[in-house]
Amino acid sequence: MDSLLPENERTRHRRLRDQGSRVRADLDAILAAGFVCHVGVVVDGTPLVVPTVYGCDAGTLYFHGSVASRSLVAGVADEVCVTVTHVDGLVLARSLFEHGVNYRSAMVFGVPRAVTDPEEKLEGLRILSEHSAPGQWDYARRPSKKELAATVLLALSLDEASVKIRVGPPDDGDGPDVALGLWAGVLPLETRWGALQADPVLPAGIEPPEHLVRLSGDGR
Amino acid sequence: MDSLLPENERTRHRRLRDQGSRVRADLDAILAAGFVCHVGVVVDGTPLVVPTVYGCDAGTLYFHGSVASRSLVAGVADEVCVTVTHVDGLVLARSLFEHGVNYRSAMVFGVPRAVTDPEEKLEGLRILSEHSAPGQWDYARRPSKKELAATVLLALSLDEASVKIRVGPPDDGDGPDVALGLWAGVLPLETRWGALQADPVLPAGIEPPEHLVRLSGDGR
Repeated sequence: MDSLLPENERTRHRRLRDQGSRVRADLDAILAAGFVCHVGVVVDGTPLVVPTVYGCDAGTLYFHGSVASRSLVAGVADEVCVTVTHVDGLVLARSLFEHGVNYRSAMVFGVPRAVTDPEEKLEGLRILSEHSAPGQWDYARRPSKKELAATVLLALSLDEASVKIRVGPPDDGDGPDVALGLWAGVLPLETRWGALQADPVLPAGIEPPEHLVRLSGDGR
Repeated sequence: MDSLLPENERTRHRRLRDQGSRVRADLDAILAAGFVCHVGVVVDGTPLVVPTVYGCDAGTLYFHGSVASRSLVAGVADEVCVTVTHVDGLVLARSLFEHGVNYRSAMVFGVPRAVTDPEEKLEGLRILSEHSAPGQWDYARRPSKKELAATVLLALSLDEASVKIRVGPPDDGDGPDVALGLWAGVLPLETRWGALQADPVLPAGIEPPEHLVRLSGDGR
């Protein structure tokens, strides 16, 4: 049986309920498919939404704390909402009212914890790094003690999350607008890695490592 | 001379100042290049970040109000932060500490106004529609009076906005880590429209209109 996400006042789907999912595997797949999230925090009573890189393991989402620095500096552990969205295409219906977007989106709620233990911080940074740039942890130079100290890493539990997914053709294929005889369907949006661009100052003869060549050939 | 965005406590760039831009043309270009934003609102004191479609003209960003419905239902005009982000690539440095992302991001702050005048609402929806699915406003069936009444459209002024952009190779090409002899550069992330997918129930003989065929051939 599918493992389900717990439901509460905040994660319960109010609107477009047919697009809501409580399947934990859907959450995991959405988080695995991206590496930039939008972190929402409240600063002086008003919202702030900042994009940042994230990584996650089975139960925890890691992201850089600097984005929430204004709250963190005050030492206040504040609620965040971390949203990851993949836009998969435009839904082109017969009526403009039924137009929409195919997407997969996950919202994670909670109070993040600042990771202070050096070993845990290094492991969290490894997870973040391998999530966004797989293979680089074993290739590039790892953080020094000084760099580690300068990095604010936040850990957010995946316990409270909400998932919404829309797939497939427009919803008005069995309605009165069919009589209009208009074309309807989906225009997919595709995201893929391009070709590696070497740093212009890279000395001649340094070839990109195999894991990056593989990545740049793949779609993602 | 470049037209500049006004600066205040909220839009002033605190972190990574070299990535901040106050050029209005940068804001306009970022908003023009996307059609899904992340809207941040505060509900019961905690942040909520919801993806939604937007459109904009020179001075105003339009988005569907349903995403902010919990606040709107209460009749309270709340502050929002609308963020649009384009992820352009991974910055692969010699050190993990210098790894990063090439991106273009705009944050727009303010209290959105619910558009109630039917003519203005229709025009706002046209702008939103033409922004996300250009050509469809003149092709698909336009909103009926009933559909128009059921649509909550919000208008947000572009007066208070903050832009951040990172482009180019890693920053450690002139530092001590060059001696490691590692490859460094950028892995670009590309987004493009795919091939049109007809609704499976579309009657035979209905061909997609020219504006959609053109769109699907282009990158975006």
